[in-house]
Amino acid sequence: MRQNPERRAALIDAAIEVLAGQGARGLTFRAVDKEAGVPVGTASNYFANRDDLLMQVNGRVFERLDPDSTVIDASMALPRTRASVDRLLHEMVERLTAFPSGQLAMLELRLESARRPELRAAITEQVRANLQENIDFHLASGLPGDADSVVLLYLALNGLIVERLTLPDLFDEARANALITELTERIIQNP
Amino acid sequence: MRQNPERRAALIDAAIEVLAGQGARGLTFRAVDKEAGVPVGTASNYFANRDDLLMQVNGRVFERLDPDSTVIDASMALPRTRASVDRLLHEMVERLTAFPSGQLAMLELRLESARRPELRAAITEQVRANLQENIDFHLASGLPGDADSVVLLYLALNGLIVERLTLPDLFDEARANALITELTERIIQNP
Repeated sequence: MRQNPERRAALIDAAIEVLAGQGARGLTFRAVDKEAGVPVGTASNYFANRDDLLMQVNGRVFERLDPDSTVIDASMALPRTRASVDRLLHEMVERLTAFPSGQLAMLELRLESARRPELRAAITEQVRANLQENIDFHLASGLPGDADSVVLLYLALNGLIVERLTLPDLFDEARANALITELTERIIQNP
Repeated sequence: MRQNPERRAALIDAAIEVLAGQGARGLTFRAVDKEAGVPVGTASNYFANRDDLLMQVNGRVFERLDPDSTVIDASMALPRTRASVDRLLHEMVERLTAFPSGQLAMLELRLESARRPELRAAITEQVRANLQENIDFHLASGLPGDADSVVLLYLALNGLIVERLTLPDLFDEARANALITELTERIIQNP
């Protein structure tokens, strides 16, 4: 299989757009080649099969959403208060919703996992590892909130992001921001 | 258009199974006729077009999930405590996850709304009305928790249900139950 890393990343990025735009059933090698603007047959040189490609989508979305070191340094400089957690969560939701196709593609992948158990174990491990990284980062940061806080915030913010991206008028941006603050104050009980 | 209400409901039920099993792109009148075990052309006699059918899915899922009067009477007999809210939320999550195709179909419908603005307004209003009903029911019940509590619980439980149905090993049933209780205790601050 071909191994040009930039070309590989561009093909996975194209798969993300196809998943978001057409759903899991629209994801074929041909659709990915077309979206990436490369000759037909290119994706099949980079991925063993469709599942091989699907299993690289989560990792690529996480990679593209990873805050850069400037952002991490800035968050590490904040006081260790609940207000700082609130600020970081607002920034995170903004970062995630600014890459809508990434979120929608990950949701398509989950739905595909519900239909196809052969994908489920791999996707579960990727999501579990990402959640654990978030928990570890939070606990190491010294910010208020225990491991369960991180899990509960993860669930509620996932719920909010799905609504913001699929039904944006259900909660407008101001209401979504107010809900994040309300959530933080209730989930993290020490200020 | 034909109006036999039982046949209509059976066709919408078939659409729910097609959405859950094959995704939004798999939803055609032909697939619905096949799933319902009726002659080809039946669905097209009942629905003006595919969107007309799609817009009836949420209502049908809500209808099938509506607790019957025995359940409502039982919940109204509970003491007005946070422990009762916790119990009702556990029962609700159990009822929702026991109809997985309904939840998955509603998620497919949201993803379809993200792709097709012409569906979005109608789906938004259905989801908004359902959420408002939940808020009104909660406030009228005299159980602890304000309107924002209901919205925050809605978001977090939606997040949890998506994980339970698509990646069931991420949080097993015992962990999911513990998370619901933890969530209730933090979101609803008066016992």
